[in-house]
Formats: sequence, structure tokens, C-alpha cells
Amino acid sequence: MSTHAPLPRRLKRAGPKGEQLRAILQGLIDTLKPGDPLPSERELAERYGIARMTVRGEITRLAAAGLVHRVQGRGTFVAEARVAQAAALTSFTEDMRARGLTAGSSVRRQDIVAADDIVARRLAIELGSGVVRIGRVRTADGDPLGIEEAHLPLPRFAGMESADLAGGSLFEVLEERFGVVPAFADQRVVAVAIAGDDAELLGVEPGYPGLRFQTLLLDAGEQPLVDAWSLFRCDRYEIRLRQVRPPQS
Amino acid sequence: MSTHAPLPRRLKRAGPKGEQLRAILQGLIDTLKPGDPLPSERELAERYGIARMTVRGEITRLAAAGLVHRVQGRGTFVAEARVAQAAALTSFTEDMRARGLTAGSSVRRQDIVAADDIVARRLAIELGSGVVRIGRVRTADGDPLGIEEAHLPLPRFAGMESADLAGGSLFEVLEERFGVVPAFADQRVVAVAIAGDDAELLGVEPGYPGLRFQTLLLDAGEQPLVDAWSLFRCDRYEIRLRQVRPPQS
Repeated sequence: MSTHAPLPRRLKRAGPKGEQLRAILQGLIDTLKPGDPLPSERELAERYGIARMTVRGEITRLAAAGLVHRVQGRGTFVAEARVAQAAALTSFTEDMRARGLTAGSSVRRQDIVAADDIVARRLAIELGSGVVRIGRVRTADGDPLGIEEAHLPLPRFAGMESADLAGGSLFEVLEERFGVVPAFADQRVVAVAIAGDDAELLGVEPGYPGLRFQTLLLDAGEQPLVDAWSLFRCDRYEIRLRQVRPPQS
Repeated sequence: MSTHAPLPRRLKRAGPKGEQLRAILQGLIDTLKPGDPLPSERELAERYGIARMTVRGEITRLAAAGLVHRVQGRGTFVAEARVAQAAALTSFTEDMRARGLTAGSSVRRQDIVAADDIVARRLAIELGSGVVRIGRVRTADGDPLGIEEAHLPLPRFAGMESADLAGGSLFEVLEERFGVVPAFADQRVVAVAIAGDDAELLGVEPGYPGLRFQTLLLDAGEQPLVDAWSLFRCDRYEIRLRQVRPPQS
């Protein structure tokens, strides 16, 4: 019982089997939708009389190119188009709009807490002083893509603890309600295994890979506005960078 | 039998237990070296009479800040300083030098192969035309940090298949032997679970998180020079970004 598109019964053309399999898989991916399963390695190997290693090598190559992704114990699936973060500072909501998706949020926490040592140092405020904490699951067309927890210093952002963030962008609230426009974001990005509660919120198995961002939003005068961490599913989010070679001394 | 530094026997100060544990752990991390183990969650919970959930929450917070990292089934360890890739295009060798580390390579493949469809499209060359393939494990002070596979088009880089890359930088060979200086790199970065052979080469368990880069090096005239993918261990490599807000229309 196969849920994927019909495949050629057998290899027909002359030439190396690996190359024929490559052409067949490429054609299959072109006809499938993101998230659709590919036939199993075993199924492909048996159908075309090709060594399992050869099949695996071809699928590894497609995975490396980002065309498919493997899920441990489940199989191989056509990759979703990933949302890309680039060098321009844009909000999640803007990134989604640019892709024709509707950004949403499920607000999990929106309260006032005391800044711990890490948040205080990053926001350049006193340890224990008040910050508004905003915890959200970020969605695209309703699918959970990432989790975010942001801290904003009081008293500058007093009232943020009751702002309506469910449908909208933190950037929009910052600008409309506080007249503040973030000018820069300093970010560190690492790869992590998504654990426990986070995995449940994102609808993935524990251990699934994700990108974790630690972000400090700054105003034009380099004053910290928002300290945030966020965690995005690896199958739906990527970074695009253009690096430029500095002048060599 | 604990291999970590001595800890206070019990909580002494008044105040919330979570905050005291936080101060103790912060002090412990300051005295330990990267890679040193932290006491187990169970040990901390029992020693200080604190709920296991509270201990876990504190460690999660330290992990989120990048101060410690957890290894499934092994415990929690003080984080290594990660090598950072930033917006400036620099070679791996240069990145290591900037951190006082010695870059090295173990060359696994250095040969001439036919460009497959993905490589051909990215290098803007004919399908099946010759490319030099260079597969290396990249090391810092002898530790494997990443794996890289690069493709360079022939005939422009004829001879690269026999260049000495074991100790040096591909960038240096490009400049010294071919008079070519990469001006830009276009990159896509995703988080992945490191699998099979790659995990073995990097000395991590299969499923360990990594950052995968797909990189196209371009010359000043935007002509493709090198198409490469690379894969770095999450505990030793990170990305640092400064994003700038574009003018709003």
C-alpha cells in the first residue's frame, strides 16, 4: 500500500543504475507535494534490482541538497519549503508574509518577572529588576514552527504585559504603542536536539534537530530593547547568509 | 565518586532554593573547564533537598544560555567555547587562528569526478563535466569539528586534485596557485541530526545535532568558484549574525 505517485516499473534506459534511479527520484520529487513520503529504500532497491547502499547514497545526496528529509524510523519525505532568515532584520510575521503564509502565535506566558543574571546582563539592567516576559509558539498557517521567549525591560515597556499579541507582531506593537523601531539584532545560532516540552509544543519527536537563536534587539542608538531566545524546527526553518570577504591586510 | 569540583554541602542563605541553586551552579561553572561534567540532576536534588523539576529547570536555563550542554544518557557538561562563523567571509583556517587554535585537515577524497545535476547547476557548468572533489575532516588542535565536501570546476582549477591541503587552507591554495580570491559566499544553513559515517568521523553519537552549510563561493564578478557542503558539531560551532533593519517602505 503505497501512498506515493506511480513509479516506472523497471529501469528502461541503458546506463548506470545509480544515474537512472537519480532521474526517477528527481522526477518523483517534482510531482509530489512537500511532506509526501518517498518509497522506502527497500522498496526502491527491490523494484529496480539496485543495491540498497546505492539507493541510500542517492537519498543521502537528495537530503544533503535539502530536497528531501529523513525521519528516523518513519522514512523519507519531500522537504517543505523552509522559511529563510536572511541578513536583513525582519520580524517573523514579515518573513511569513513574504512567503505567502499567515503568521500566528499561541501566547503561553505574558507576565512580569524579575530579571535573572543572564537577562539582566544582556539587557544592561539591574539584577532582579522587572521585565515583561512573553512566551509564544509561532505558527505559519497554523503549523507550529518555533518557540520564542522574549524579555523586555520595565518601565520602558510597561503595558506590554497586556498587549494583544495573539494575531500580531511584537515589532508592530513596539512601533505602534511605544514608538520604538528595532534597528539591529545581534544573534547567536546553534543546532540543538529539541527536548521534552519543546518537542511536544512543536509536534516533533524528542531529539529532533532544531535551530536555537539567542537574539538581542537593539535600537538605532545600540540600546537593548528585547532579549529573546527562540527554537525552530529544522525541517521548516533555515538561515540564508551572504558573507563578504573583508579587505585583507 | 564525583569528578567535579567540591560543592557547598547544603543551602545556607535564606531565600528561594532555586535562586541559591542558580548561584551555586554559576559558581561551579566558573571554576570548571570546558567539557567537565556537572553533578547529576538527581545528585543536586538530593544534596540540597530541592525538587528534581526545579533542578532540571535551572539546568535547562543554563543550557539555553549556552553555558552547559546536555548529552543524552551521559549528563551535563560545561560548554566548550564554540567557534563562531560571522558575516565576514573568512576561511575555516582563519577562524581557528583568530581563536588561537591550529586548523588541520584529514583529506579523505581528492579526485576528479563528473558533476552531477546539483553541482552542475550550482557551478553553472555542463552536467557531467569534470570537477575536482575535495572531501576533508576539519580539525582544531586535532579535534574533529566538521566535515566538508567541496567541488571546483575544471579546467579552471586543474591541478587542485593534487594540491597539498593536509595542513593548509583551500583559500590559500586558491590565491597562491590560481590567483583567485573568493569575494562572496552564499550560504544556506540548517540544523540536522548527524548520521552514520558522519557521526563516526566527528566522534559523536548518531543523531547528535549539527549545523549543515551549503556554500557557494563566488569571485568578485559573481562567478562560482567552489560549491561545498559542510557539517559541524553543535557543541563546537555556532553562527553569529548582526542583522540590520532595512528601510521600511
